[in-house]
Amino acid sequence: AIIVYRLPWTWKCSKLLMKFIHAGLNTIAMILAIVSMVAVFEFHNAKNIPNMYSLHSWIGLTTVIFYSLQLFLGFAVFLLPFAPVHLRTALMPIHVYSGLTIFATVIATALMGITEKLIFALKNPAYSASPPEATLVNCLGLLLVIFGSLILWMASRPHWKRPPAENAKILRPVGAAPEGTEVESTMTNSSNADKSDLRSNTEAARKQNIKFDEAGQRSTM
Amino acid sequence: AIIVYRLPWTWKCSKLLMKFIHAGLNTIAMILAIVSMVAVFEFHNAKNIPNMYSLHSWIGLTTVIFYSLQLFLGFAVFLLPFAPVHLRTALMPIHVYSGLTIFATVIATALMGITEKLIFALKNPAYSASPPEATLVNCLGLLLVIFGSLILWMASRPHWKRPPAENAKILRPVGAAPEGTEVESTMTNSSNADKSDLRSNTEAARKQNIKFDEAGQRSTM
Repeated sequence: AIIVYRLPWTWKCSKLLMKFIHAGLNTIAMILAIVSMVAVFEFHNAKNIPNMYSLHSWIGLTTVIFYSLQLFLGFAVFLLPFAPVHLRTALMPIHVYSGLTIFATVIATALMGITEKLIFALKNPAYSASPPEATLVNCLGLLLVIFGSLILWMASRPHWKRPPAENAKILRPVGAAPEGTEVESTMTNSSNADKSDLRSNTEAARKQNIKFDEAGQRSTM
Repeated sequence: AIIVYRLPWTWKCSKLLMKFIHAGLNTIAMILAIVSMVAVFEFHNAKNIPNMYSLHSWIGLTTVIFYSLQLFLGFAVFLLPFAPVHLRTALMPIHVYSGLTIFATVIATALMGITEKLIFALKNPAYSASPPEATLVNCLGLLLVIFGSLILWMASRPHWKRPPAENAKILRPVGAAPEGTEVESTMTNSSNADKSDLRSNTEAARKQNIKFDEAGQRSTM
C-alpha cells in the first residue's frame, strides 16, 4: 500500500483510482491486523497466558491504534471530498511520515515477536543451540529487515514520485484550457482556479508549483 | 549525530565544523558499539552462552558492519577533500537513507535485545507475571520508540534543513563577488566556479540551485 504511488505503471491510472487502491490495501491490512490480534488474545486465554505483558504487545497495540487513526484520518481528509486544499497540504507530510513510521514500527514489532516465539517455542534443543528452525526463522527475520529497507528506499526517492501532471494542470494560468479528466479528482478545484486568476504569468505559477511540491502538496490532488 | 544539521543554532557554524561534529559523534558511537560488542562476547564466553545464535545478534552485527561502512565511506567522500562534486551529489541521498535506516534498525535491535533480556532475566516472578521491573523496562522500550520517531521526524522535515546559503554563494554568477569564508569548505570549488562562467543570467543559476537542492547537493558543500 505504501509504494502504490511509486510504481511507474500506475502513473497512467487516475489519481482517484490510486487513492482507492492505497486506501483499499490499507483497509485489508487493518482487517488482517484485527483478526490476528483477536487470534492472539484467544490463544493466550486458551493457554492461560497473560495478555499484554510484553514489550512486543505494548508496542504492537500502540502501533495498531495509531494505524487505525492514520486510516481514519486519511479517509476523512484525503479520500472524502470535504477537506480544503490547505488542510490537505498541511497534513500530507504528517500522513507520509506517520505511515512510514508505523510501517517501521510494525517491522520492529514483528522482529520482537519472532524473538519471543523462538525463545518460548524452541526448548529441546533450545534456541541457543541454533537448531535448523532457529536458523531458518533468523533468516526470515533478516529478510523482513531487507524488505522494510527496500520499501522505505522506494518510498523516499523523489524521482520515484508520481509526476506532477495534476498540479501543473491545476495551477496552469487561466488562459490555457486544461485538458484531461478533471472529474478524477475527489475535491473541487474551484479555490485553486480562483487563485490562478490572480496570477499574471506562467513564472508565478511555476514558482507556486515548486513550493507546493516541496510541501508535499503534489500528493493531495 | 543525525540531527546535527537540523539544529537552528548550529546554522551559524561553518559547514566544516558541522561535518566534524557529525563525524566525531558518529565515531564516538562506533567506538561505544565496538566496546559493547566485545563486552557481550566476553559475557557470553564467561557464562558459557553460545554467541551469535539469536536474531537480535544477527541483525545487530549486520547493522554494526553497515554502520562502519557508512562511517568509512562518509569520511572518505564527504570529509576528505578528494571526492568530486558529482560523486558527493550522487552519494548524499544514499548516505542519508543509509544513516536513517541504520538508526531505525539499531532501535529495532535494541527492542529485540530488551525483549530477550526480560525473558531470560525475569524468572521469579516471570516476565509474564508483569513484575515492576517488566513494566519499567517496557516503558523504557516505548520511550526508545518515541525517541526514534522524533529523531526521524526532525531528520525528514525539509524546512529544518540547513539553509542553502553556501550553495547560493557558490552558484552566484561571476559578476557578483562572493562574500564569507570560502575556506570553510573542505573541497575546491574551482569546477563549480568554471561552470558559473558559462551562465548568462541569475535565473539559470537559480534553476540549477533548485535542481541541486532536490538532489541533496545542498549538504555536500
